Amino acid sequence: MQDLTSYIQEHKERFINELTELLKIPSISADPAYKKDVIKTAEAVKEQLKKAGCDTVEICETLGYPIVFGQKIIDPALPTILVYGHYDVQPPDPLDLWNSPPFEPVIKKTDTHPEGAIYARGACDDKGQMYMHVKALEYMTSTNQLPCNVKFMIEGEEEVGSESLSGFVAQNREKLANDVILISDTGMIAKDVPSITTGLRGLSYVEVEVTGPNRDLHSGLYGGAVANPVNILAKMIASLHDENNHITIPGFYDKVEELSDQERAAMAEAPFSLEAYKKALAIDAVYGETGYTTNERNSIRPTLDVNGIWGGYIGEGAKTVIASKAFAKISMRLVPNQDWREITALFQKHFESIAPDAVKVKVKPHHGGQGYVTPIDSTGYQAASKAYEESFGKKPIPQRSGGSIPIVSLFEKELKSKTILMGFGLDSDAIHSPNEHFGIWNYLKGIETIPLFYKHFTVLKKNE
Amino acid sequence: MQDLTSYIQEHKERFINELTELLKIPSISADPAYKKDVIKTAEAVKEQLKKAGCDTVEICETLGYPIVFGQKIIDPALPTILVYGHYDVQPPDPLDLWNSPPFEPVIKKTDTHPEGAIYARGACDDKGQMYMHVKALEYMTSTNQLPCNVKFMIEGEEEVGSESLSGFVAQNREKLANDVILISDTGMIAKDVPSITTGLRGLSYVEVEVTGPNRDLHSGLYGGAVANPVNILAKMIASLHDENNHITIPGFYDKVEELSDQERAAMAEAPFSLEAYKKALAIDAVYGETGYTTNERNSIRPTLDVNGIWGGYIGEGAKTVIASKAFAKISMRLVPNQDWREITALFQKHFESIAPDAVKVKVKPHHGGQGYVTPIDSTGYQAASKAYEESFGKKPIPQRSGGSIPIVSLFEKELKSKTILMGFGLDSDAIHSPNEHFGIWNYLKGIETIPLFYKHFTVLKKNE
Repeated sequence: MQDLTSYIQEHKERFINELTELLKIPSISADPAYKKDVIKTAEAVKEQLKKAGCDTVEICETLGYPIVFGQKIIDPALPTILVYGHYDVQPPDPLDLWNSPPFEPVIKKTDTHPEGAIYARGACDDKGQMYMHVKALEYMTSTNQLPCNVKFMIEGEEEVGSESLSGFVAQNREKLANDVILISDTGMIAKDVPSITTGLRGLSYVEVEVTGPNRDLHSGLYGGAVANPVNILAKMIASLHDENNHITIPGFYDKVEELSDQERAAMAEAPFSLEAYKKALAIDAVYGETGYTTNERNSIRPTLDVNGIWGGYIGEGAKTVIASKAFAKISMRLVPNQDWREITALFQKHFESIAPDAVKVKVKPHHGGQGYVTPIDSTGYQAASKAYEESFGKKPIPQRSGGSIPIVSLFEKELKSKTILMGFGLDSDAIHSPNEHFGIWNYLKGIETIPLFYKHFTVLKKNE
Repeated sequence: MQDLTSYIQEHKERFINELTELLKIPSISADPAYKKDVIKTAEAVKEQLKKAGCDTVEICETLGYPIVFGQKIIDPALPTILVYGHYDVQPPDPLDLWNSPPFEPVIKKTDTHPEGAIYARGACDDKGQMYMHVKALEYMTSTNQLPCNVKFMIEGEEEVGSESLSGFVAQNREKLANDVILISDTGMIAKDVPSITTGLRGLSYVEVEVTGPNRDLHSGLYGGAVANPVNILAKMIASLHDENNHITIPGFYDKVEELSDQERAAMAEAPFSLEAYKKALAIDAVYGETGYTTNERNSIRPTLDVNGIWGGYIGEGAKTVIASKAFAKISMRLVPNQDWREITALFQKHFESIAPDAVKVKVKPHHGGQGYVTPIDSTGYQAASKAYEESFGKKPIPQRSGGSIPIVSLFEKELKSKTILMGFGLDSDAIHSPNEHFGIWNYLKGIETIPLFYKHFTVLKKNE
């Protein structure tokens, strides 16, 4: 019976080629123009799950993009692991900042990835990390080492708020029943510093529209006498943070849990170089909430960021116009206990309240999700910790992430099981950015670590 | 010898058709994609000036778009009038707000224009108003009633700052020598309230760029820890006005001349209804500098308006990104005595000084121009006043405009002559906006009034 590492060595070329094919399909869920490609990707995932050894695989239709569900039940008495991932990707723009086309994967060696990295939109988030689980299953089934039951649920709307997923999960509790949920859609601290994400931030995403005059106006004839929607929007956005970069929305912090000094001290032990951080981003200074470190600001503290703003003339040259309307897309990252619907309502109420009489304001809630925390004494976390220890040769560090996977808290609510976030990407992989990539070493290390999780989880469950 | 009004009645259909043809050419000087059309427009203007009776017409090349120059010298001993206008137009966007294509002119009747108005980009600003002068010349030459010499200088870069014009004027003082400059590129108070613009605001137009991290970032992984260029830009823009909507740039008001109580009282006599103003713009309230009326805010007071802003994801759906860069186009309207180069320098110094360390800021000056005032006791103003009195049956009201025609102060400096701004457009003509139009009554009234100015100016000059 072939062992894990030699199997990976033998098949790694194929593992890379199969992922490359998947990355060529532009499954951009945010843009209706790519609908065919998103569906094509779902079918490709279905095929690969079959080949990897699932007994049944189906494409489950939803009001949005379909969810691919597959499973292999070897013994109902054994534990069941549910793998979640997504096959959709973020829009690639700004396109001109990509060094190679986002949907024409290329492998390049870098200082961080001397073994090479695959450059393509979705390479890490999440096609690459999702596909590690498919290949790990292939290993376990083809070598008869699958120790427990497994289910896959791969969706196509994660980058646009997983709107169909909640209904699907609520209607399929039986089908999705499991003992633990396994997700690789996060990162680890460094290649030599394995880490497991134990906390996620929630999200509230809104779009705002400020309307002034009923038409664009000549800035000379009307300038100074009429509210300029762009100036007003800028003023309203500016007012959402105070001089300490605290968010000024009344009630925003009411449910924010302050971490204990011990917890903050533990966080501070994770290796971090502020100089390296600034150098990597080419910034002279970091910027954020007074009284918190960089690692605290982007993980245990809530935020309010404008993700996009537009209004007036943005073409070449100059146009002396006062726009009729100005717009912004604004997202707030939330911490555990903050309810995203409540925060969205607080934002809406506040934003409307600070608009001057001279303009009209619309707030359109986009989507959101709750924050989440995994206890490190849970069976799932312990199994993951052992798996990393075996494949990396060292214990992983529990880490809070600033990102959001809204559905994690949904899973706990509907399926009553904990989620383990085994991420193998790096911060430098540029997910959601031009030149997203995923290290081949990380990809193969993930494929190596996952079967070890299955093994340890099954054993620990037996001994519970 | 045919009289003015009957000539206009006889030829008005042709006058309208000729203008319509000119309006069909999209001479958008701000967008290089329309270069051919801009040049085609210059040639069309040249042809029409010939037909109207100019002895010589030439297309004068510049580093930018050409200037059409034509003249008819009947007697060097007689006064010379220099007509200035521009054949370029503003970009038409937002296109979706036009009820008919901007470059497919249509005539529609409205409450303000029961005789019909021509809808097209440039109908009023400035093709329509410029062409009134061409047709007025046609009348005077074809009926042998041209009382003095005339020169035409029609440029193609007015909407982008007239960059080539200053050099052209400086190098052609002899050729352009004149006793008065006549421009129709402004408006009048109402069809039954003729007015002559005696003051213009200056302009300083800049573009700003705020750069944060060297690439777009995931707003979850970095949000809260890194300066978001869009939030910072909003904050910087907001800080440019204080709670009284005074502009906060140090030194900005140093040279602003406060009008006397008498002057302000005289201004207040111009007919104006705040309710009608708000209704026309569909706003619940006006907005501007504390202590000044609406008519003062948009004419005798300087302003700072964002004409365009953009940054981050502005496509469909949601993208959780922190942009690397954010941009804005900002223009300041200036009053007489404020020097636009000095104000541009003050803006640049201040804007750079308020940027936090966490971002880098670039300020790119676009173009600008000085403010201007015409004394109402000048020969030119007196002649214009008599012309209006004869064609409208009532004395025109001298009026300060909030708009800018930067080249007016340039003309005075280089050519040592005063400019008379005989505008026949209305505020409701939506210049620089979707559905720009020009009333046929106004168009014909302009053609009727201009020859009367020639007549009175020649007489007054003789009696000087």
